[in-house]
Amino acid sequence: MKVAKIQRGGRVASAIIRGDRVHVVGRWYEEAALAAPFDAPRLSLSQLGEIADSAGETLPLDQVGLLMPSEPLSKLVCLGLNYKNHVDETHNDLPPNPALFTKVADSLVPHGEAVLRPKVSEQFDYEGEICVVIGKGGRHISRETALDHVFGYTIMLDGSVRDYQKHSVSAGKNFWRSGALGPWIVTADEIPDPSVMKLETRLNGETVQSTTADLMLYDIPTAIAYVSQWTPLAPGDVIATGTPGGVGARRKPPLWMKAGDVIEVDVSQIGVLSNPVGSEH
Amino acid sequence: MKVAKIQRGGRVASAIIRGDRVHVVGRWYEEAALAAPFDAPRLSLSQLGEIADSAGETLPLDQVGLLMPSEPLSKLVCLGLNYKNHVDETHNDLPPNPALFTKVADSLVPHGEAVLRPKVSEQFDYEGEICVVIGKGGRHISRETALDHVFGYTIMLDGSVRDYQKHSVSAGKNFWRSGALGPWIVTADEIPDPSVMKLETRLNGETVQSTTADLMLYDIPTAIAYVSQWTPLAPGDVIATGTPGGVGARRKPPLWMKAGDVIEVDVSQIGVLSNPVGSEH
Repeated sequence: MKVAKIQRGGRVASAIIRGDRVHVVGRWYEEAALAAPFDAPRLSLSQLGEIADSAGETLPLDQVGLLMPSEPLSKLVCLGLNYKNHVDETHNDLPPNPALFTKVADSLVPHGEAVLRPKVSEQFDYEGEICVVIGKGGRHISRETALDHVFGYTIMLDGSVRDYQKHSVSAGKNFWRSGALGPWIVTADEIPDPSVMKLETRLNGETVQSTTADLMLYDIPTAIAYVSQWTPLAPGDVIATGTPGGVGARRKPPLWMKAGDVIEVDVSQIGVLSNPVGSEH
Repeated sequence: MKVAKIQRGGRVASAIIRGDRVHVVGRWYEEAALAAPFDAPRLSLSQLGEIADSAGETLPLDQVGLLMPSEPLSKLVCLGLNYKNHVDETHNDLPPNPALFTKVADSLVPHGEAVLRPKVSEQFDYEGEICVVIGKGGRHISRETALDHVFGYTIMLDGSVRDYQKHSVSAGKNFWRSGALGPWIVTADEIPDPSVMKLETRLNGETVQSTTADLMLYDIPTAIAYVSQWTPLAPGDVIATGTPGGVGARRKPPLWMKAGDVIEVDVSQIGVLSNPVGSEH
C-alpha cells in the first residue's frame, strides 16, 4: 500500500494512493503543513486497508500536493558510511558501530520541490538513501523483532554540503531545503525482506549511484535496534540507512549539483523521488 | 527579566518571574507540555514589561512547575570543543570552524527532574553550558548584528554518554533524558555583554568545571552568524555554546555521574540549573 501525506487548499491529511485516486485517512488538519500531524503510521495495515476499501472520501491524485511523509515532531536519524564502497571512496575506516547524525525538518523538501544549492558553498552533493518509517514505537528494540516496528519505507535525498560537512557533519547535512523526503511510503507488508531493494540515483538522467540494500554494512534491523538504544522511537520517526558509493565529491573532477539540474532517487518497490535543483538566490 | 515556561494543572504558559510570583504571558495552552508553544521569545521586552507591570494573572512561584524554556519545534544547535582547555583535555586540534551537533528535544529534561544514566553505558558525563535563546529570527545574520537577535540566555547540562559519543557524536549526545535545560531565560537587556558570564558546574556540591565566557574560542555573535549560514533561526531556537575543561571522562580515574548524585550548572546573571541523577532502570 502506498501512503502519502497530502495537502489541498491549505489542509493536510494522510492518504492511501491507489492508481490515480487518493483515499483520505483520518481527518483533515487545518494547520500549516509543518505542524500538521501524520495519522497513517499510527494505524494498522488492516485499518488502512478498510479505509481504502470503504466508500470514504477520495480525490484524483493530480489534484493534491504531496508533502514529506513524516511527522512534524519526528526524529530523522541518518546512518553515515553504511556501504563499503562509500566508506572506501571517502577514505574512512569501516565504522565499528553505526555512525549517526540527525537532520532538522526544514533541511528537507517534499517530492517535486526544488532543493537549494546554498549561497555560501558550491559543494552541493547528492546522496540517495532508503528510509525506514517507524510504525510501532519502542526503546531497546531487539534486532530479531525490529522489522515488527516498521510501518514502511520511503526515500531520502540527503543533500550534503561537503565543505561545511568537513567542519561539522551536522552543519553540512542540515542546510535549509538542501534535501528531500518522499514521495510516499510503501507499507512493510509489500517489502517483507528490505535487503532486496535496489537503489539508483540519477543526476540529469545519468546514473551516478547504484546499489542493492543487502550491501549495507549495518542492515535495517540492526540500525533500528541500535538507534532505539539511545532514543525512544515513535510512529512516524524516520531512519535513513546511508548512501552507496558514487557521490559527486569523490569524482574527478567533482560533480556538484547546480541550478537547473534534476536529481532523482529511484528505489525498486517504492518509486522515484524527483526534485529540481535551484539555488538559494 | 526572568522568563519561564510554566506548567500548572496540565496547562502550559509563558511567564515572567518576579520575586516569588509569576506573571502569566499570553495564553494558557491545554496541550501536553512538549507540544505547547512558548510565547515569550516572540514578544519584545517592552511587551513583556507591560505584562509584568499590569494587573494580569499572577501565581505564586512555588505553585507552578518549570518546563524547559524552549519551543517544541525548536532547533537545539550545540557547539563542541569551544573552550581551549576542553579541546586540550580531549586531545583534539583547535577547530578551524565551529564544530556542531544537534540535540533532539526528548534528550533533555527541565530543571529539577532527574537526568538518567542509560542502561547501556556507565560513561555518563556532565558538560555545563551557557545557551543563547533566539528572539528575532533570521538567516545569514552578520556577526555585527547578531546580538540583536538574542532574546536571552539560559543554561544546559549537556549530558554526554562518552562510549557512544566515540562512535557517533549525535548518539552520545542524544540519549533519552540525559541532559537538562533551564531553569529559565534571563533576557538579553540584563546581559548586554555575554562574555562576562561565569560558569561553574558542581557535582554533589564540588566544583568540577569553572570558566568565564570570554574564553570561548568562537564567541556568541560568531556562533549565531555561523549557524544562520546553514539554517534559518526562529524565535525560541537555542544555541548551546560548548563546555569548558574539567569533564569526567578526562579525570584519572574518570568521574561518571550515577544515581543519587546531584548535578548543578551555575551561571552568573542567570541562576542555577540543578538536577538529580537517576538511572534508566
